[in-house]
Amino acid sequence: MPFAFFPFRLRHALRRAGLGAALTLSAIASAQPAAPAPPPGAARALQQVPGYYHQAIGTLRVTALFDGVVQLPRAQIQGLAPAAIDALLQRRYVPESPQGLQTAVNAYLVHVGGRRVLVDAGTADCFGPGLGQVVANLQAAGVSPAQVDDVLLTHAHPDHLCGVLGADGARAFPTATLWLDDTELRYWEGPEAEARTPKALRFVVGQARRALAPYQAAGQVRSFKPGDAGLPAGIQALASPGHTPGHTSYLIDGGDAQKLLVWGDVVHYHVVQFARPSASFEADVDRVRAIASRRQLLAQAARAGWRVAGAHLPFPGLGHVRAEGAAYAWVPAEFSPLPAVPR
Amino acid sequence: MPFAFFPFRLRHALRRAGLGAALTLSAIASAQPAAPAPPPGAARALQQVPGYYHQAIGTLRVTALFDGVVQLPRAQIQGLAPAAIDALLQRRYVPESPQGLQTAVNAYLVHVGGRRVLVDAGTADCFGPGLGQVVANLQAAGVSPAQVDDVLLTHAHPDHLCGVLGADGARAFPTATLWLDDTELRYWEGPEAEARTPKALRFVVGQARRALAPYQAAGQVRSFKPGDAGLPAGIQALASPGHTPGHTSYLIDGGDAQKLLVWGDVVHYHVVQFARPSASFEADVDRVRAIASRRQLLAQAARAGWRVAGAHLPFPGLGHVRAEGAAYAWVPAEFSPLPAVPR
Repeated sequence: MPFAFFPFRLRHALRRAGLGAALTLSAIASAQPAAPAPPPGAARALQQVPGYYHQAIGTLRVTALFDGVVQLPRAQIQGLAPAAIDALLQRRYVPESPQGLQTAVNAYLVHVGGRRVLVDAGTADCFGPGLGQVVANLQAAGVSPAQVDDVLLTHAHPDHLCGVLGADGARAFPTATLWLDDTELRYWEGPEAEARTPKALRFVVGQARRALAPYQAAGQVRSFKPGDAGLPAGIQALASPGHTPGHTSYLIDGGDAQKLLVWGDVVHYHVVQFARPSASFEADVDRVRAIASRRQLLAQAARAGWRVAGAHLPFPGLGHVRAEGAAYAWVPAEFSPLPAVPR
Repeated sequence: MPFAFFPFRLRHALRRAGLGAALTLSAIASAQPAAPAPPPGAARALQQVPGYYHQAIGTLRVTALFDGVVQLPRAQIQGLAPAAIDALLQRRYVPESPQGLQTAVNAYLVHVGGRRVLVDAGTADCFGPGLGQVVANLQAAGVSPAQVDDVLLTHAHPDHLCGVLGADGARAFPTATLWLDDTELRYWEGPEAEARTPKALRFVVGQARRALAPYQAAGQVRSFKPGDAGLPAGIQALASPGHTPGHTSYLIDGGDAQKLLVWGDVVHYHVVQFARPSASFEADVDRVRAIASRRQLLAQAARAGWRVAGAHLPFPGLGHVRAEGAAYAWVPAEFSPLPAVPR
């Protein structure tokens, strides 16, 4: 039951479907927690620092782009007893509201081989207000959407794909090629996505198709199969299915043994799933395969010392995986001036 | 031997003193590692995101301000065998150059009780180029130096105090009151600082006196003793001596059980000293007292769940201390939109 991650539209869909809010909403992510009222005497509203962060990785220049946050409930963690989940989360100080644990939505711009490659594109308006900041943060980082040569999608969920459209419904990246795993593309285009998505959530299928349409009409969508050599130079697609049938991670070569793995949705609950990789997210289409993909990429990343970029790790979501006993720990990158000292 | 932390001037001082660079420099922090040449085909130089970050803590509005980074060598960790140090640092991916482990220099602006209070002020030009970014980042955050009402100093080392002066040697915060623990002030004004500082480093005594002088001439320096009630409302000074004789941490009340501890130099090597609080920094004037202060504040912060701001924790250096076995772990705050959801 891929219930989470579709919070804003979901609430409306559930209401339209006549489902009682009390029954389900406590277990469903909310994209937009109520902002607490400013305390008396507070200063004028502050503006948070822009949501971009640059990192040099060998010859790569990587820019993490913040889209916003969603709330994922503890109750949507599967395969681990609630008491064990609570114990892991104790004193880990993840911001939490009644709707769930604060979870970032990140995208990544990678300057590789002379091309500007965006991996995932954020939510645009698909998750309601408060998110959809990728393009604004890209511009704050000094890059215009028209300069993006390629958009690589890890999968076609709305928080990765919707951002390819602007507010007007047209292509936000007018000259970019959209790259998507062939299995993933066929899943969302065919009847299976509708059949496997609960009725109240089926609007996400329409969201995926709507986001792809203008690029398809312009001949700007390219699908690939694992092992295909056709991706932009320096980029390798690693099949990591489970969360969706064609979920894909991208390994990007910065030369001199410096590699960046942009792994999409391999981890949703960072406090839980590094320590317990067999804990699943309820929204995974195939949990068994999702667990296998997570275990494989965690092991590879830890062994090889790859840099990792995670769509739902705390922004900027850049760092390393470290083996810890039989499991793993996340080592976030330390804020550094540019150029970063390469390791 | 407080050798570290004075890298830029130190190199010159050592050369002036005729000391061989090869003998000592490998064990001395360098403020300015050589930047690697940009790789062929790299894009124009990127600008890192501005070094400020806002956080709401109860009624407080806290802004972390990045001053830059210094390099602290592993060899200046005392009280722990080199093999144990190396084991702790293994796969923790702290950026490291031949000069040492990258270590942030942070200051904090706290809006409390209608006053803008800056805790520490960065290096200005005392550590050479690359640092001294506090005022620029304050301005990027929308605050002018003239709006700062108070500067609270944790101690009078150049990376905390020099920043109270502008490039012209005049007061950078023209209307601010400078607050300093009485023991700390007397130490730096009297003969003890010179007597206890190695000759090659004695310029730091002059740096401290030079930074204080224009504020003293204007009657803007106020010293306090532990327990004095005279500090700005909502702020409590906690004596935490050892790194320097009058080193002070500040506990700031955000109401509703929300407290922020700005702890200055209680931790320098975050990967090592949370896990092993008895490991010292060579520059501590009194290591035994520094260890006792560290143990006490770590225990208090972990037990009470205080927010912590650390001058040398990875920027923004905001987070919590978590007890882990007989020691501690650092839990960095997750990047969040404003207003942050209070806990």
